[in-house]
Amino acid sequence: MSKEKIPYKTYLEENEMPKCWYNVRADMKVKPAPLLNPATLKPATIDELSAVFCRELAEQELNNTDAYIEIPEEIREFYKMYRPSPLVRAYCLEKKLGTPAHIYYKFEGNNTSGSHKLNSAIAQAYYAKKQGLTGVTTETGAGQWGTALSMACSYFDLKCDVYMVKVSYEQKPFRREVMRTYGANVTPSPSMTTEIGKKINAEFPGTTGSLGCAISEAVEKAVSTPNTRYVLGSVLNQVLLHQSVIGLETLSALKKLGVKADVIIGCAGGGSNLGGLISPFVGEMLRGENEYDIIAVEPASCPSLTRGKYAYDFCDTGKVCPLAKMYTLGSSFIPSANHAGGLRYHGMSSIVSELYDQGYIRATSVEQTDVFKAAETFARVEGILPAPESSHAIKVAIDEALKCKETGEAKNIVFGLTGTGYFDMVAYQKYNDGDMADYIPTDEEIAKCLSKLPVQPE
Amino acid sequence: MSKEKIPYKTYLEENEMPKCWYNVRADMKVKPAPLLNPATLKPATIDELSAVFCRELAEQELNNTDAYIEIPEEIREFYKMYRPSPLVRAYCLEKKLGTPAHIYYKFEGNNTSGSHKLNSAIAQAYYAKKQGLTGVTTETGAGQWGTALSMACSYFDLKCDVYMVKVSYEQKPFRREVMRTYGANVTPSPSMTTEIGKKINAEFPGTTGSLGCAISEAVEKAVSTPNTRYVLGSVLNQVLLHQSVIGLETLSALKKLGVKADVIIGCAGGGSNLGGLISPFVGEMLRGENEYDIIAVEPASCPSLTRGKYAYDFCDTGKVCPLAKMYTLGSSFIPSANHAGGLRYHGMSSIVSELYDQGYIRATSVEQTDVFKAAETFARVEGILPAPESSHAIKVAIDEALKCKETGEAKNIVFGLTGTGYFDMVAYQKYNDGDMADYIPTDEEIAKCLSKLPVQPE
Repeated sequence: MSKEKIPYKTYLEENEMPKCWYNVRADMKVKPAPLLNPATLKPATIDELSAVFCRELAEQELNNTDAYIEIPEEIREFYKMYRPSPLVRAYCLEKKLGTPAHIYYKFEGNNTSGSHKLNSAIAQAYYAKKQGLTGVTTETGAGQWGTALSMACSYFDLKCDVYMVKVSYEQKPFRREVMRTYGANVTPSPSMTTEIGKKINAEFPGTTGSLGCAISEAVEKAVSTPNTRYVLGSVLNQVLLHQSVIGLETLSALKKLGVKADVIIGCAGGGSNLGGLISPFVGEMLRGENEYDIIAVEPASCPSLTRGKYAYDFCDTGKVCPLAKMYTLGSSFIPSANHAGGLRYHGMSSIVSELYDQGYIRATSVEQTDVFKAAETFARVEGILPAPESSHAIKVAIDEALKCKETGEAKNIVFGLTGTGYFDMVAYQKYNDGDMADYIPTDEEIAKCLSKLPVQPE
Repeated sequence: MSKEKIPYKTYLEENEMPKCWYNVRADMKVKPAPLLNPATLKPATIDELSAVFCRELAEQELNNTDAYIEIPEEIREFYKMYRPSPLVRAYCLEKKLGTPAHIYYKFEGNNTSGSHKLNSAIAQAYYAKKQGLTGVTTETGAGQWGTALSMACSYFDLKCDVYMVKVSYEQKPFRREVMRTYGANVTPSPSMTTEIGKKINAEFPGTTGSLGCAISEAVEKAVSTPNTRYVLGSVLNQVLLHQSVIGLETLSALKKLGVKADVIIGCAGGGSNLGGLISPFVGEMLRGENEYDIIAVEPASCPSLTRGKYAYDFCDTGKVCPLAKMYTLGSSFIPSANHAGGLRYHGMSSIVSELYDQGYIRATSVEQTDVFKAAETFARVEGILPAPESSHAIKVAIDEALKCKETGEAKNIVFGLTGTGYFDMVAYQKYNDGDMADYIPTDEEIAKCLSKLPVQPE
């Protein structure tokens, strides 16, 4: 197909949108390791998981066999408000780089939550409503997940309690106000509304909080409030399942254009965006139908895949959740305060970890200043201000395109542009002012955190 | 056509995008009054206008005869990065209101400038580049226009000097940083970089500036810098011409759906969005082909159409620009400080003013708290956080839909959703906290400003 025939933006028709999510676990010969009950070190049962999560979501969490799971019609209707998202041909970036490569990106930022998080938020809110719950609780750091969940809960008329890390609550008042506009109750964490919050406030007066503490508060609030469950925006199998809508649309759009992707790139924090984008492509690899070069990009300041250990670990610093087997830096690892944006999680989704361990994915890490340089280049030619998280993928897409310039290869490079950076201007300002710093943890720091891993099951 | 057959979002194909802008003046029997040279009170000539504006833009400003003006290919290519914009069927809002009306909105916020302003910014940057200029200057208040122009100048590698009203520069640091990310030089106004700025700073130490002062600085900077011109984001005929792309796409999409609009609603500040949206529809009315009920919505705090006078007035408080005949509150009118967002201009585009005077448009004004209530309702069901400006149109669209509920009419209501509110969270916070106030100027205040109108030509 000639260059002229591929449009800048390819949208599927509404009737071409996925009717099922794709569950990559069904096609994996070796499945991701199960979640473990931390007390017994035995696989967590559906009943144990249902105490914290909605029943149907707990079932999805454990479902290793069904390749396709129907997307309920109510969720498909909601998806139509902001999906299908465009697959964009980055003609202007290609021209700027002078590369023979063809660059595509799947843009998930065209919704008010500003990121792909809404794909799973609406699913989790739907199942909560269906189960007859009256509300959900969650934590948020950078705020994308909290915003997405607020929107979803507003749509289904559910109460939404968001524990927002205190330092973010104070430094990102605009994120907080978006959530409030959607009717969410936003509480700075640690707060005085939970036992664990009171305890932490007493122990560390004046603390500005952490994601681990916010998780603990959200879980406590959920289990102590009638008809309420806790929901999570990344890492879990259920979340990657919902996010497969990204990859399914991408694959359909590429097929429509007659384009075969060569390289697929996604940023990786907890793994929800990466896992969702690559699932259908990995499915083709697992079934022996196609080959792809898949790259997970993580920040050099939080390098779970490239420098972590594949082991069972706590999912949260408060150690209240089940144990998960994943590439991890240890649950006590906290990235440097000068690290901007998300991608701060100490571990990595079990699915992504297992695919990485089996060699279906390779991983690389990039430094912050390079990421913002790539973001600026992209913004100026493609007209979209990217989120810092997404810009990790941009950086590596540019690197790959420049390699093609050297070799003369016209590879098809596809990356996930997960969101917009409107609420990240403090970080952009640091970059604009030349005040941005890089940070790479030392081997000693990582070894210290890894030494605190829990006892491994036999 | 049944409800099921109309999708949530209708996108034109790229090859269906307009190849020409529509110049409504060509179809007007009585043309808008010409700009006047303030010294001679004679119509401004092309040579006079070319001293301030690019030659080709000055020609567009004066062109009352060509109904269609070709969109240069370079601009059409840029448009493809973020256009066609979707025409959205507001199914969820209809359901929430329980109205038999069918509500559609043309959403112009899906680009990083966050509004429709980019449609004209890219055109003005293109003609500047084509003329061999090296840079442009402008002013910005709320920041949408400055952001759009920064993006356009970055694309065409032009220097971009933005004078940002000092109070906005300080209160909207994130807007400022987006402009800087696109390479613009942003200066708080009044500054010490111009004579007029120095004079104002000396006369009023500590002043936080005004739009009028920022215009004066931008014009001075343009005429005192080699190869540089001044550009403006609204009011002018050329801007409405470029913005006709909104209305042309809307009309094409409706025709594709087999839908005839009954009511068309736009917010009105300087008139660029409203004029662009309605132009092709008004063209059909002028040619006797169709009838539409067109409503301009302005803030009750700055009611130029509903309470102003149709007369020649200064376009800027500094009185350096040509005189324009328009509905005006007087160039010394400044809306109350508690008025949020844009739509603060004392006058109204000459085209919109003349169409209003001829009865093709009706106008209404709405109060701020009602506007934010409508914004919240819309955000919660339609999933888009609207700009305060756009929410004026939402408010009246909801009112019209509720009238249909009373009468049982299934009218097709179309409104312009000009942009997103991500940078307006201070105003949303005021609303969320219950601290938002309304303000309506008294007859005496308006009469006082109108008493200072310039001598009218004979």
